[in-house]
This record gives sequence, C-alpha cells and structure tokens, in this order.
Amino acid sequence: MAEITFGKAATLADVARAAGVSKGTASNVFNRPEIVRDEVRRRVIEVAKSVGYHGPDPKGRLLSAGKVNAIGVATVLPLGYFFEDPFARVLMTGITEACDASGTGISLVSAANEEELAWNMRSALVDGFILFCLEGAERLVALSHERQLPFVALTLGHRDETMSAVGIDNVEGARLVARHLAELGHRRFAVLAMQSGEGGFGKVAMERVNTTTTSASGDRVRGYFEALEAFGIDTAAVPIFETQSDEATIHPALEEIFSSPVPPTAILAQSDRIAFIAMDWLKAGGISVPGDVSIVGFDGVPESTTSSPPLTTIQQPIAEIGCRAVRAILDHSGETWREKIDVELVVRGSTAPPRD
Amino acid sequence: MAEITFGKAATLADVARAAGVSKGTASNVFNRPEIVRDEVRRRVIEVAKSVGYHGPDPKGRLLSAGKVNAIGVATVLPLGYFFEDPFARVLMTGITEACDASGTGISLVSAANEEELAWNMRSALVDGFILFCLEGAERLVALSHERQLPFVALTLGHRDETMSAVGIDNVEGARLVARHLAELGHRRFAVLAMQSGEGGFGKVAMERVNTTTTSASGDRVRGYFEALEAFGIDTAAVPIFETQSDEATIHPALEEIFSSPVPPTAILAQSDRIAFIAMDWLKAGGISVPGDVSIVGFDGVPESTTSSPPLTTIQQPIAEIGCRAVRAILDHSGETWREKIDVELVVRGSTAPPRD
Repeated sequence: MAEITFGKAATLADVARAAGVSKGTASNVFNRPEIVRDEVRRRVIEVAKSVGYHGPDPKGRLLSAGKVNAIGVATVLPLGYFFEDPFARVLMTGITEACDASGTGISLVSAANEEELAWNMRSALVDGFILFCLEGAERLVALSHERQLPFVALTLGHRDETMSAVGIDNVEGARLVARHLAELGHRRFAVLAMQSGEGGFGKVAMERVNTTTTSASGDRVRGYFEALEAFGIDTAAVPIFETQSDEATIHPALEEIFSSPVPPTAILAQSDRIAFIAMDWLKAGGISVPGDVSIVGFDGVPESTTSSPPLTTIQQPIAEIGCRAVRAILDHSGETWREKIDVELVVRGSTAPPRD
Repeated sequence: MAEITFGKAATLADVARAAGVSKGTASNVFNRPEIVRDEVRRRVIEVAKSVGYHGPDPKGRLLSAGKVNAIGVATVLPLGYFFEDPFARVLMTGITEACDASGTGISLVSAANEEELAWNMRSALVDGFILFCLEGAERLVALSHERQLPFVALTLGHRDETMSAVGIDNVEGARLVARHLAELGHRRFAVLAMQSGEGGFGKVAMERVNTTTTSASGDRVRGYFEALEAFGIDTAAVPIFETQSDEATIHPALEEIFSSPVPPTAILAQSDRIAFIAMDWLKAGGISVPGDVSIVGFDGVPESTTSSPPLTTIQQPIAEIGCRAVRAILDHSGETWREKIDVELVVRGSTAPPRD
C-alpha cells in the first residue's frame, strides 16, 4: 500500500495520529470508506481537512484495491450519441440519477470498433462498465475477466452467460406489437430493422437474422414473425430492411417498400427513432399515417407521445434499466446477475385498421 | 517507468524485440504515441496485437507521464443536468464532437459542493478539466496547480488569471439585449437572474450583484444597467430576482413582479431556460407575450427557435465553446490561454414595443 503525498503537505500518518486512529483505519477511510464506521469516518475526514491532507492522490488510490467512485459507460457509437439520441438520453437520465444519489462520477468511453474500445476500457479508472449497444462483444467478455470488474450488458441476449445483464425480453415486446397490428386486420407488413451486426444494409434474408442470435434486432424479428404466423401470415413474404437508424439507410428502404405494386399496410419499425424518420418520409410523400399505412415503434422514448401522430410503441422502462445497471455495479457481489424488465404495448394514434 | 503485465502474457520487452525497436520506443508507442513516427507506431501496435500484448495496464499507464486520453468535465450541479438542460446539452455536443474526432473519452465529475468536488477531481484520471458553472471556484485554482493539468473555465470572469478560459463577454451580450428593449420604447423592467453565488433567492440588492464580481449573473446585470442608464432609465427602480433557474424560485418572483400596481413591460431573463419557465407562467396567467409584456433570454439554445413565441435572445456559439475547450486541453502548451467568443442579438417574436 503506497501513500504518496504532495510536497510538504500533511501525510496520512499525520492524519491518523491527529485523529487518534491507526494508520490502517485512516487509510480505509480514503480507500475503503464503506468498511469504516460513520462516526470514525467523519472524524478522520474532519481532521484531514483541518491539517490540509487532501486524500491519497490518484496513483496511491489506484494502487490500493478501493473503489474509485466512477461508473464507465462503454460504446462503439460516437459519444455525441449520448446527448442526441432519444433512447440514450433517457437511459443516461437513469444512470445519472443513480450516480448523483451516490456521489459517483461517470466515464464515457468510446472507440471506432470493439478492439480499440477494449484498449480504451483497459485504462479507464472505474468501478465497472455498463455496455451500451455492445451485444455480441466477445472481446469484452475476456476483458471483464482480466480487469476483475463488473460489466453489465443492457441486453439479456448476450451469448456469454458470465456477463451480468439487465434488459427487456425483446422477443416478447415484438410479439405484442405485431399481434396488435394483426388484430387490427393488417396482413401485409414490412420490417425496418436496426443493424444486427457488421456489414451491409438494405433488404436482408431471414437467414442473416437467424445467425445473429445475440442481437436485439434478430430477437425482435423473431417476435414479430411468431405473432404474425399465429395469424396465418406468410412471413417469408415480409421484407426485412436493415438500417443504421438514419435517413441515409431508412429512405432507400422506404422507397423500395413503396415502389411495390402491393405495398404493405403496416410497418414494423424496430425503434421509435426509426419510426420517426419513416413518418417524416411518409408525410413528405403524402402518405397518411395511419390512413394509408400504420406504423409502430419500439422503446417508448418521450418523443413518442408528442410526435404527429403520437406513436404506438413498446414501452421500455428505459431510465429504470440505467438506474439498475448502476446499482448492480455499485453493489457488486461478485456474482453474475441477470434481471428481466417487463415491457408494455402503448397504443397511440399511428395505428388503425387497414383501409382495404 | 513501471511495466506491469498480466500473468504470463507478453511483455513490452517481448513486443520491442519482435518489432525490432528499443524498449523505450515501444513504451513511447503506448504512453506518448504523439512522438512516435506513424509507420513505427503502426508496426509496434501490429506486433503487440499479434503477440497478445494489450498495452500497459491502468496502473502502469498512470505511473508514466503519458496522456490518458480522457477529458474531465467538472461541476457542482447534478450529472443529470448534462442530459436535461438545453444549454448543457448543446455544450456537450461540442465537447463530444471534439472528443470523438480525437478518440478521447469523457469523465463527468460532480459533487454537492466545491470542496467535495475537489476531492473527486483529485482522483479522476484525465488529461485536463473543463469547469462547468464553477465561476468563483478558488479551491480549484489550487488544485489545478497541484495536479499540473490544464483546467479550462467556460467563463472569462474568473478572478484567477492563471486559469485558462474560453467564453463570451457577458457584459456586452447583456448590453445588446437591454438596448434592444429600450429602443423598442420599454421603460419599466424586471430582471430574472441566475444565482450569483451561494445563499438566498428572491429580490436582491444591487450591492450583492456588485460584490459577486466573478459571476455571469453579476456581469449580465451590469450590462443590462449600463445600456438602460444610457436611455436615462433609473436602474435603482429595476427589481432583480435571483433564481435557481427552476419553477420553485421563478414563480414566486413573477408573482411579486406582477402584483405591482405598475408592472414592468419587459422582462430581462438571464438565460433561455429562465425565459421559457417565465413564458409558461405568463401563458397560464393569461398575460400575453409580447402583447402585455416583452421577454428576452440569453444563450440561444435550440428551443429558442421553437418556443411559442420564438424567443429574442443573445446567441452564444455554445457547441463551439465546448469544442475549443477540449482542443485547448488536448493541445495544452502549458501556457495560460484565454479566448473571447463573440455573441449576437437574435430578435424573434417575444419582443415588441410596449402597449402603453
């Protein structure tokens, strides 16, 4: 255990002496405060302040086994995403709420791909990582074992069972929303999917969806199709378009969908964000929602209540998921922990029976 | 220089040998990559990957003098503020843009007060700090000298001249917006101010404003009053209400302002956020903007273009300020650096000549 002090400033030993505790106890106050009685901790901190001891410096702190009081949030998306994307923002609201309640900081760690991300995560000074949109991240499983820190995935679909996770049942959510459309009488569908892995966009085969078993995208397609097949719908005829959740990949998909002589009467969008971009495209093209075509989203971001029309969607308790992921890291017991969160179908103005 | 490796994994020496470079050069690739020629850096990294060397671990990295590739953003506001507040969100967009462009992570560090914040900042593993809403932070000046890292304030009003800063001229912005109202013919005003320091809210004396020389709040009041006095307006009769930028402190101020037998015809709100809350209160009370009362904001957040009516305000290049603060840290030369960013008045629908 190294204690490093600044210049002629007071040392930890000075603090221990002045507070009438052992050096070990004084050290614990700064490095493992959770094991020190409140009264003692308060006394030592008071004394430390009065003698001008400012706590161990980062080096000393890192060399000890104590908590660093920071949560890492890791992603291969640009960091700007956390401040712009509706889903990510609500998630961060939950994460910050749990952090603010416990005086914990947040490190946002990003990189262009999983390998570089692992390098950056290796050097981040945190008590654990929340993995955002990193579903199939095999490289990170190894890193979590190496760093001996809790890693929490925000999806239950991760292939590795040693990874802690909190998230929703994507298959069940997708079933709910597809059943709603089938019950309204819809029989012709198209799917606007999120990316299910690296590679191309545009129309994809069910084969691709089935091989990406760890992805929320694949799980949602499976849920949609299970529900539609129960209504006798031939899902082999339902086109799936993978997108990057942006206009550049969603617009061409919609153009192809609506160039069909018999276009769908309902669109299954795999996120609210995709649904909003599609609704803007439909509006611009004079296609009425839900008059000409119904559309459903997934997530239940705040904007789904104020869009025009308001969006029928699957409501995830997004902030709650973020909050629980933080608590799982802060209360880490060493055990792998998995928690499934319920979703619900929220029917709003973007769905109606088909015209024909 | 310590090299710490994992178990039986390859060491830095193995990498150096395999890549045909000195151990010092191999070390530079991981700790001071900016001084290594591209070609050499690429070769060493390739070799490192091929032999399974994953770079120095956080401890080794911290013990070296190298960059850690992370920017700290420090505040005494809750972390949730960064994802909810309109100004903070745009600022973070600029910060993330500069970070994403350079593969740099972000650590958000917060605490309930300046003293606790200094403790948390002491142990954060970053290359420098951006100080958010920490104008008079004397304690942090000492910390910046101790940690030998660049600290960049987002206000030019900081009392300590050794602190680097980028920001706007608050006095000049306030002059512009007050002059606009005076030119429209307004003669009766009230100020809804941001907090100028610790302590109470409600109606405050100019004396308090004048003593808080480091605050944007005080600077904006001074700018308003300079402009109004040039029109012969008695600013001693202009009430100043300090608020916490929330309904709980803005609503009572407005109640007091509009209980006057001769209420103001124009409100000077020190931020767009305050102006929006005031406009909601006015709308609920049947007071028309700008028919009954004109209102101006400050900042130019995106919502100022979509509010009802759109808000006349001072446009700060908010994202640009965040971006430059990051660049200042990443390109840190050791010199104190100060940059003033120009603002402009944007006239929209919330201001008009007074009715009487």
